[in-house]
Amino acid sequence: MLPLHLQPESHVPLYIQLRDQLRALVHAGDLRQGDRIPASRELATVLGVHRTTVANAYAELESEGLIQGHVGRGTFIKGNGNGLKITPPAPPVLNGGNGIRWELLFADERGEEILSRLTASEPQDSLSFVMARPAEEHFPIEELQNCVNAVLRREATDVLKLGCSDGYRPLKEALLEMLRREGFTAKDENLLITDGCQQSLDLICKAFVRPGDSVILENPTYPGAMTIFSQARARCLAVPVRTQAEPGSALGIDLEALEAALAGNRVKLLVVTPDFQNPTGTSMPLASRRRLLELAARHQVPVVEDHIYARLHAREERVPSLKQLDRSNLVIHIDSFAKVAFPGLRVGWIMAPAAAIERLRIVKQTTDLHTDQLAQATLAEFLRRNLFTKHVAKMRKVYASRLVALDEALRKYMPEGTRWTCPEGGMCLWLELPPGFDASELLIHAKERNVLYAPGRYFYVQSPLPNTLRLAYAGLDEKQITRAVITLAELLRIEMRKRQRGVRRAERSRVALV
Amino acid sequence: MLPLHLQPESHVPLYIQLRDQLRALVHAGDLRQGDRIPASRELATVLGVHRTTVANAYAELESEGLIQGHVGRGTFIKGNGNGLKITPPAPPVLNGGNGIRWELLFADERGEEILSRLTASEPQDSLSFVMARPAEEHFPIEELQNCVNAVLRREATDVLKLGCSDGYRPLKEALLEMLRREGFTAKDENLLITDGCQQSLDLICKAFVRPGDSVILENPTYPGAMTIFSQARARCLAVPVRTQAEPGSALGIDLEALEAALAGNRVKLLVVTPDFQNPTGTSMPLASRRRLLELAARHQVPVVEDHIYARLHAREERVPSLKQLDRSNLVIHIDSFAKVAFPGLRVGWIMAPAAAIERLRIVKQTTDLHTDQLAQATLAEFLRRNLFTKHVAKMRKVYASRLVALDEALRKYMPEGTRWTCPEGGMCLWLELPPGFDASELLIHAKERNVLYAPGRYFYVQSPLPNTLRLAYAGLDEKQITRAVITLAELLRIEMRKRQRGVRRAERSRVALV
Repeated sequence: MLPLHLQPESHVPLYIQLRDQLRALVHAGDLRQGDRIPASRELATVLGVHRTTVANAYAELESEGLIQGHVGRGTFIKGNGNGLKITPPAPPVLNGGNGIRWELLFADERGEEILSRLTASEPQDSLSFVMARPAEEHFPIEELQNCVNAVLRREATDVLKLGCSDGYRPLKEALLEMLRREGFTAKDENLLITDGCQQSLDLICKAFVRPGDSVILENPTYPGAMTIFSQARARCLAVPVRTQAEPGSALGIDLEALEAALAGNRVKLLVVTPDFQNPTGTSMPLASRRRLLELAARHQVPVVEDHIYARLHAREERVPSLKQLDRSNLVIHIDSFAKVAFPGLRVGWIMAPAAAIERLRIVKQTTDLHTDQLAQATLAEFLRRNLFTKHVAKMRKVYASRLVALDEALRKYMPEGTRWTCPEGGMCLWLELPPGFDASELLIHAKERNVLYAPGRYFYVQSPLPNTLRLAYAGLDEKQITRAVITLAELLRIEMRKRQRGVRRAERSRVALV
Repeated sequence: MLPLHLQPESHVPLYIQLRDQLRALVHAGDLRQGDRIPASRELATVLGVHRTTVANAYAELESEGLIQGHVGRGTFIKGNGNGLKITPPAPPVLNGGNGIRWELLFADERGEEILSRLTASEPQDSLSFVMARPAEEHFPIEELQNCVNAVLRREATDVLKLGCSDGYRPLKEALLEMLRREGFTAKDENLLITDGCQQSLDLICKAFVRPGDSVILENPTYPGAMTIFSQARARCLAVPVRTQAEPGSALGIDLEALEAALAGNRVKLLVVTPDFQNPTGTSMPLASRRRLLELAARHQVPVVEDHIYARLHAREERVPSLKQLDRSNLVIHIDSFAKVAFPGLRVGWIMAPAAAIERLRIVKQTTDLHTDQLAQATLAEFLRRNLFTKHVAKMRKVYASRLVALDEALRKYMPEGTRWTCPEGGMCLWLELPPGFDASELLIHAKERNVLYAPGRYFYVQSPLPNTLRLAYAGLDEKQITRAVITLAELLRIEMRKRQRGVRRAERSRVALV
């Protein structure tokens, strides 16, 4: 039998694990051209997984040209099993000669990038809850065009020449003004412009984390953060996020578990999203924020506050951010224009104590010199004309209405046994299927009906709950949301009936045996 | 006496070494508030350095508020020597409370960033050879504005939404078309869009280099490359660049030394700039390129070819790039729009075998998701309208003429004993002062006369020659170049006379003693 070892507790889906292990066997020469591999049903039984898991893995390997099915004969290895590359077509610049085995040179394993894979395979007309992205139909294109033109008329040479690593001066000034109006007390030396929150996390990791250092992440969390810290060979400590209110414990990161993690480890960084956390949509109440800051100050651990969703609050009142509550100067606050306006313009920022910013500025310089200045100048103008504030106010209402539609549809259509979070803003809602259901398996059926979402396992640092999933609802309108929920609910009911039939059959056969 | 240890052979200038060591003594509490430090003349004698070296270090520490001079009494430590931060003003978000000692958390030492320091302190009207940057007065602003508007009218939503990590499709297509016209045979799978060459090097380092791996760099080389690989804790092996033609050895990287380095080490990457190398301006002849590729293929070492200056050839004919000569599929070719057009738009690209690009794409995604799409779309339009090719053709002539002016001025005004390279394009020329002169010391006087350049020591991986300097001439017009050279030549003659007087005085006193 093939030496396959699947790990159900991993955040990597089973079919991806299976695909990668089979591919590795081909590359290692353990499977060679012409070798027959088991039928999907057969392998599924042996491995104790659903047949669709195996079918999915086979489909991917077939599309890569590694295996081929022959009607009535079975599935066979297609390549010669020797010198096969991960990317099958020979690199085109080659003209004879013996190529480098690039895959042997990679500094670490291929990062998983499930979400973009899911998106890449999205049909055009699908209803996709996969990516947390702003509503494209509301992009203020004309306003933006005016801003670009004003900028190029007035300051084209400044925009086009090499800039400062800490950011384009007019953008820094406009941002500081907005931040001050919002109650932050930052100065120029507290602000670094970046290419967005993904880069901000990467710079913070480079500046502060060495291989082997411990970093606390929420569990579940944003997969992009996990990838950064694990590729930097940090120890990622997972602290659970409470998604359902229970007596005696608040929503958001579990403070008791956090305290234990801080006490038991020399922690280098703590990364949290206090507002409308990705993926769960939960927010920390004020008391929890104060307590978290106390704990961090006691252990002298810097706190990275991901503020990317915070402006999208559905209700009028807002809980102050960690940065605003910080009395010990330990918060590194990251934010971006991506979620409230334009993800295609890669501009975000870090607000932090001057000493931290100075360090991050040097890292930024080494990484890519500085952020694109056409985007920076355009966004500066967008801020100065007060268009950003207006746009945020508008989008808050749009998303709040979509959130209501989602919650109502879930209440109306979902079968008993499912439950979900009640976000008060942001872009994501977290749903738990009845125990025993696997969101990755359900997705296979959902895809066939053109509904897509992100299975929860991709967001877990450890101990994934396979029955969870994330619905990033901001990019769909109310009707689309309702249609998609109806489809998901139908599928779930079908799966529940199948399961009940299975139980009944098992009961009947037991009866027959008696 | 103070425990100071300067390393003249380091590429870090002596005054920076001294400044940093003194600051460290203050931070460590070895020097405390009120302690008197030696007069600059006195310390210079003890350390065996020029007095201006000490004066420069003191000036920087004074501007940081760490030391203060009192007329007639001497220079004293100003801070309390305890809890002093690198950045003196207390971080402003703080409101009481005990702050984190950020500098203790940094993952590695502060990178040097001398060039941008030099630039930052440039007076407005100075003649600066410091940065290799395009001529701002030739930026094609109107054309660019037309491109932006066309793009926003036609495809604004695509530009503004989240994009693909490998690049904006229309830019990839336009680039591939241009590259094919230039004789490259790349396909979509061979191309990754990045934020420019600095980021390309950073991504390549992340994808292929682990701590402890050996990387071969030219010596001298681009400081940004050194910083990336040394911060990744790679072993940087320095292979000399030949800057003067000699019988039996060609210009460019020393192939014998390269062969020895490849034979004696397990090398992970070889980074070269075959055309108009930064900082020396030298180019490798065709035979050397072929030989380099043979050596790399024999040792199975990927070659990173920095192609950033190659389009700026002063003469009509061009030597084929390593990528075009590569028969073994081992060249990772990096290029950018920064030097030929707009450094403020951060867009570059990597062309490489598909397996390498696939890996780099995943690293790019983890690093910052993707490159800004407004800049990408604008440059795509710029390419499609054939404006890029036109602009390059124009700038080649502009820079060729500036290079001629520089060479002529050097021939006319420089004292005997100086020599320089004869670049056939690019933006940089490398100059050697007569032996015994230190370009960092001369710069102190040059700055007073508003002429700036980059001392050669910043470009060395090891064994810096203190008498070398880089003249990045592209940003100055012919008149400015001539004026600046006249100033430098005058200063050099003054220093030479001083030295001759010193020799004569020493001779006289020897005569008197006899």
